[in-house]
Amino acid sequence: MAANVTRRTLLRSIGVAGGAGVMFESMLALGLVASPQALAVPDFRSPAPGDLGSGKRGKKVVILGAGIAGLATAYELAKAGYQCTILEAKNRVGGRNWTVRAGTTETDLDGHTQTARFSRDSNVYLNAGPGRLPQSHITLDYCRELGVPLEPFLNANANALIYNEGTGVAPQQYRTAKADMYGYVSELLAKAVDRGALDQELTTSDKDALLTFLSGFGAIGNKASGYAYSGSGRRGYSVEPGAADQAGTVLGPPPSLSEVLASQVGRYFSFEFGYDQAMTMLQPVGGMDAIPMALYAAVGKDKVRLGAEVTKLTDTAGGVEVLYRDKNGKEVLVKADFCVATLPPHIMARVPTNLDAGVTAALKYPTITPAGKIGLEYRRRWWETDDHIYGGITETDMDLAHVWYPSSGFHAKRGVVVGYYNTGTSARTYGALTPAQRTERALAQGAKIHGEKYRSELASAFSVAWHRTPFLEGGWVGWPSRTSGQYALLNQPAGHVYFAGDWLSYYIAWQAGAFDSARYAVTNIHQRVMAEG
Amino acid sequence: MAANVTRRTLLRSIGVAGGAGVMFESMLALGLVASPQALAVPDFRSPAPGDLGSGKRGKKVVILGAGIAGLATAYELAKAGYQCTILEAKNRVGGRNWTVRAGTTETDLDGHTQTARFSRDSNVYLNAGPGRLPQSHITLDYCRELGVPLEPFLNANANALIYNEGTGVAPQQYRTAKADMYGYVSELLAKAVDRGALDQELTTSDKDALLTFLSGFGAIGNKASGYAYSGSGRRGYSVEPGAADQAGTVLGPPPSLSEVLASQVGRYFSFEFGYDQAMTMLQPVGGMDAIPMALYAAVGKDKVRLGAEVTKLTDTAGGVEVLYRDKNGKEVLVKADFCVATLPPHIMARVPTNLDAGVTAALKYPTITPAGKIGLEYRRRWWETDDHIYGGITETDMDLAHVWYPSSGFHAKRGVVVGYYNTGTSARTYGALTPAQRTERALAQGAKIHGEKYRSELASAFSVAWHRTPFLEGGWVGWPSRTSGQYALLNQPAGHVYFAGDWLSYYIAWQAGAFDSARYAVTNIHQRVMAEG
Repeated sequence: MAANVTRRTLLRSIGVAGGAGVMFESMLALGLVASPQALAVPDFRSPAPGDLGSGKRGKKVVILGAGIAGLATAYELAKAGYQCTILEAKNRVGGRNWTVRAGTTETDLDGHTQTARFSRDSNVYLNAGPGRLPQSHITLDYCRELGVPLEPFLNANANALIYNEGTGVAPQQYRTAKADMYGYVSELLAKAVDRGALDQELTTSDKDALLTFLSGFGAIGNKASGYAYSGSGRRGYSVEPGAADQAGTVLGPPPSLSEVLASQVGRYFSFEFGYDQAMTMLQPVGGMDAIPMALYAAVGKDKVRLGAEVTKLTDTAGGVEVLYRDKNGKEVLVKADFCVATLPPHIMARVPTNLDAGVTAALKYPTITPAGKIGLEYRRRWWETDDHIYGGITETDMDLAHVWYPSSGFHAKRGVVVGYYNTGTSARTYGALTPAQRTERALAQGAKIHGEKYRSELASAFSVAWHRTPFLEGGWVGWPSRTSGQYALLNQPAGHVYFAGDWLSYYIAWQAGAFDSARYAVTNIHQRVMAEG
Repeated sequence: MAANVTRRTLLRSIGVAGGAGVMFESMLALGLVASPQALAVPDFRSPAPGDLGSGKRGKKVVILGAGIAGLATAYELAKAGYQCTILEAKNRVGGRNWTVRAGTTETDLDGHTQTARFSRDSNVYLNAGPGRLPQSHITLDYCRELGVPLEPFLNANANALIYNEGTGVAPQQYRTAKADMYGYVSELLAKAVDRGALDQELTTSDKDALLTFLSGFGAIGNKASGYAYSGSGRRGYSVEPGAADQAGTVLGPPPSLSEVLASQVGRYFSFEFGYDQAMTMLQPVGGMDAIPMALYAAVGKDKVRLGAEVTKLTDTAGGVEVLYRDKNGKEVLVKADFCVATLPPHIMARVPTNLDAGVTAALKYPTITPAGKIGLEYRRRWWETDDHIYGGITETDMDLAHVWYPSSGFHAKRGVVVGYYNTGTSARTYGALTPAQRTERALAQGAKIHGEKYRSELASAFSVAWHRTPFLEGGWVGWPSRTSGQYALLNQPAGHVYFAGDWLSYYIAWQAGAFDSARYAVTNIHQRVMAEG
């Protein structure tokens, strides 16, 4: 504490002497505030046309996988004249970045084929994989560079609901839950302060400042009232304020402190404080796949071979040889100077290679997180017209986990609600069902929140179980330990083979991790080529 | 408390017996949860073509003012065949709903003429009056009915800043301020609970539930650590997580509890809990004036006389007579069956009438709130590219009050930052300056937050002081008391004259208040006409 006080006194002096600008610089230097500029991954520089002499230009790189990591690798390497070929087993690019629209078809590992019967409307789509972008991630830099238009993704909405079925409490709006929880927390802390229970932590001026904060934060009464929380307009209204004598009727009275605590509504509040989840969040206009589509176009569609399933990878003295089976079943050999393998590790582990056995073992080390999602297209946007819910997420303790309302296309004719987005056991439960059964289960659970219209207004549905999806077989992976050698090993080249993907970053399950990892591989290859004699 | 427990026990039984749907209905009936449907002003029905017999069809209504209240009055009355004429003193419709674009020109009461030199770009505009719409307001129903497209307005952003100049603390992001404040609040309350200071309020299971909540809410340590708050990734990163070994460096360490309390950052947190300010908030695509423009088109442009300044209003035995001066200075008489006067009360009070002296006195009773705003067009969107701020509001203790970053047009070439939005004394301070001086003051204050680019990247500016704007002369008004007679009097017709406007509602300074009040006047006139013999 003494150090802090001294630092603060120092900053005050700087502030007085030099003005706010100087003080801000000093705070930056002391590491007390973030420099937004510093967040832009300062040490990455894209390979540039002039970097390579004519002798080195045209080096060949074969890339396994046309997800974000693979596409970004090709995109960056091409800037300096590398010749890239991407082999993609699926018949589309993007990997888990997948937007489902009218006519999208997919067959899962259990033989279930779905074809989306969504209406042909720009508002009607499902981002089956990633659905949101934090404002700090380098994904946004790529969107800017590639001209992908962005709009807000509404990750938090006071009118969205909380429903903990297990507590027996009816669905309620976030605004109501927050008003009550913050009200009672403020009341309790104010009482404790008033009773002197925190005298060893708080000076008199601390107490004054804290009570002032709690008064506003919790909308609680004054000392004479015992700092009591008794509800406020923040809860919502049973009758809205209006014209003339319609003053409005505040929703109430609030449940008791014990009831609020027992309802467990507070368990969802910290989600929106997360570094990667706090608003502002964003999404590409018209579907998340605008990002891989823009990369695909920038890389050149002729550089990507779709339906190309890798059957063998050989690291040779001078480069790599990759054998793949094309969409007609024909085996094709590709030779290159380097390979960047961006397949999920558990998929890559199955490809026969001549790499060290430790590499294959390392590829098998991460654990797979199953994940599932369903898009429910409705004939009318009842969540807007009836419930005044414009975007946002309803949280539940049911195994559907989350319900997402669309963040755009407000008041359009139709829209797609994400009826479940779940991971782990819940995703396995849903994934084990047929698509029709998944829809039925999602509707039965959702109807507990929204009533019968949740079923009766449905137009069509499309679901994905990522762990049962060919060539991906998982939502994402995790490292039981990052320090037990495997993670470090795969972040090193194995001869001429480099690995890349979100799974080799600290942004697992985020596109930013795939971009970061691609940049890392690109930088390492480029430096190696530049350093060669 | 006993009543609550009983109620809860009852609800549990209902839940068990009848399922969640039945329980939700029961909660509704008990007033414990809001019925979203109930918020749609249930008792308003638009006048319909069949309501009036042929003898009553074509009744004439003259409306003073083409702001939201005036336009909505004409729009609703026309549905049943009333013939409306709107007299508007300004040369545009919309009143305070005013979007400034390239070429917009205005002369204030002090003789300052500004012409907006904004670039001609759909992203470059200033909503000089209202700028946001809550998702519960009936304004959204009109947007839907009129086909006004909406997009999110970002009223809260974790990357926006807080700067309390008076405390000597440098600007910091909301995310950092929240992490620290909620961290210390949680630590303190957990300690107090642990010490038994709240044993009279909390049962053992309450305590467990509360400590679980605080652990997540504050990201605090466990009991063994004294529930200590010591920072977390929620604060932000000085080095972002990335690929390979870049685990990221959390911004820290946090300031001490005393420092956080003294910084007064918490004073802004409750803003986003407000019924009318909590996300999701919305805005019309391309500018707020899409609403009056849609009403204007629906009413019929021929029904609105612009540049028509009312000079006399006479309530007669059979209706009203209104004299106005047209744009050529010619006096014109309009006769009608009814008048709806939607001018601001202090402006209406100056119109010579034959109404009861009490009416004029009541019109003079509300107090005027001054309000000001400036739009700063920048050559590049540095707040996005440099600072990763996508929309949202920076809060300050300076007299600029708030800085708004644009909620749309992300990554576009240019954008408009609202450099100040203030009321009261601060608005008077800015309003007393010339437009050039206002810009200078806003830049000097804003540069304390954002540095020199705040000045050097400026392209153009346009400011408004509503209290110095002809025919409006205020941001909005307030009622020293709503129960001292004046408010009730003006919500009654004065002969054939009805008053309407947000000032006659419980949604003052919101367009919803103007719509509500218009509906109230429309309903009263329509019922009177239908009841006539």
